[in-house]
Amino acid sequence: MLSKNTVKFIKSLHQKKFRNEENQFFVEGEKSVLEVLNSDFLVKLLVVTKPFQDLHFETLQKYKGELIEVTQNLLESLGQYQSNDSAIAVVEMKPNSWFDLPKGELAIALDEVRDPGNLGTIIRIADWYGISHLVFSPQTAEFYNPKVIQASMGSFTRVKFFYEDLSTVFDRWKVPVYGAFLEGENLHTFEKPIPGVILMGNESKGISPELEKKVTQKVTIPGFGQAESLNVAIATAILCDNFKRMITS
Amino acid sequence: MLSKNTVKFIKSLHQKKFRNEENQFFVEGEKSVLEVLNSDFLVKLLVVTKPFQDLHFETLQKYKGELIEVTQNLLESLGQYQSNDSAIAVVEMKPNSWFDLPKGELAIALDEVRDPGNLGTIIRIADWYGISHLVFSPQTAEFYNPKVIQASMGSFTRVKFFYEDLSTVFDRWKVPVYGAFLEGENLHTFEKPIPGVILMGNESKGISPELEKKVTQKVTIPGFGQAESLNVAIATAILCDNFKRMITS
Repeated sequence: MLSKNTVKFIKSLHQKKFRNEENQFFVEGEKSVLEVLNSDFLVKLLVVTKPFQDLHFETLQKYKGELIEVTQNLLESLGQYQSNDSAIAVVEMKPNSWFDLPKGELAIALDEVRDPGNLGTIIRIADWYGISHLVFSPQTAEFYNPKVIQASMGSFTRVKFFYEDLSTVFDRWKVPVYGAFLEGENLHTFEKPIPGVILMGNESKGISPELEKKVTQKVTIPGFGQAESLNVAIATAILCDNFKRMITS
Repeated sequence: MLSKNTVKFIKSLHQKKFRNEENQFFVEGEKSVLEVLNSDFLVKLLVVTKPFQDLHFETLQKYKGELIEVTQNLLESLGQYQSNDSAIAVVEMKPNSWFDLPKGELAIALDEVRDPGNLGTIIRIADWYGISHLVFSPQTAEFYNPKVIQASMGSFTRVKFFYEDLSTVFDRWKVPVYGAFLEGENLHTFEKPIPGVILMGNESKGISPELEKKVTQKVTIPGFGQAESLNVAIATAILCDNFKRMITS
């Protein structure tokens, strides 16, 4: 039985203010809930339908937290999906902990990427390319925003990240910083890069002048037509693809 | 003065049914309206604010159709943008006319890409890479959907396209068809391709079995992590980038 207070609590997690107060967020849909159950995130509460429970009996046996069964209608009223016939998980946030970048690894740094859909898509791209170290400027969209979680398609469980002033991070990491600009070196004729950070800027302003000073090499995706720019998630994908191709060849 | 009937007419163009009946669609926002005015599309009606009119006096002198000045509030009530301080254009659709693929050109074919945001983003990517020939299966999202126009960021004015059964197109074009699959040849070690068609499939089902038979070479974006897939617009961007790199090198 789902109490009125629990309903209220889960619904409060739609708002950043309450997520931060509670240090918890929610994950919805079959794929993402299964991925978070199999990750190192701590799941505090599972709200599931009968069919989900029957289908994933074995996975759920390993789960030690609170579990509540509800109807699909009630489940859908709790989350943001129009349709959800499986589950919602309430999950503890991870601490915002510093890590160093292991030698030979690529990282992605985001300078004020504001759109949650873009952030989620970039997390999925990072996971595809095996880039598991991400750093975000404090003004970047919130990792635990439901739209970020949704767009990441489960990949949010497989990346490490923290929010920090990026100048500080680059000063301490002491690795090359490759910044995406419209007037940099052609990505297609670039020399094999030393692993470091791929830095992407804000959707409309690009990389801030302060961080531009920390960029060791400016990179440009060559254009062959007349579009003025590419979406930041698209540009991130193309940079990751080229860097991985060059580094692994 | 904007008549009640004109208000009703513009608002009706939010719906596909009325767009098709009227053979017209609308374009909103400063950048897109300016691009459509400078394109080979026929603009039938311009609804503008005073500041837009003052700022783009010269461009508007060349415009011969109907022009109505309104307040920003009224303008915003007509379109789908939350904020629009510039203009809306009502534009005539182009006929759905067959074209052949010029020798040496790349084309993009979409097999049932359903999401308007994905279609608009793919049009912007095509324009960035100078790929101006697009073909869409009949079940692909509608080119004139306001969300497609918005996501294309003006690039919809610079591409040629038609909707047609793709098997018919491939049979008549007689060029290589490169299909994006999860089990194809590694894009990073691919041999320099002969220009042809890059075929992308539906968001969840991929390329249909019928069209798979027409694919002359299957291509895969190499993954290095654990994400199961990439969004179709992201994948299109990565294919275009690699094909352009290989063809122009």
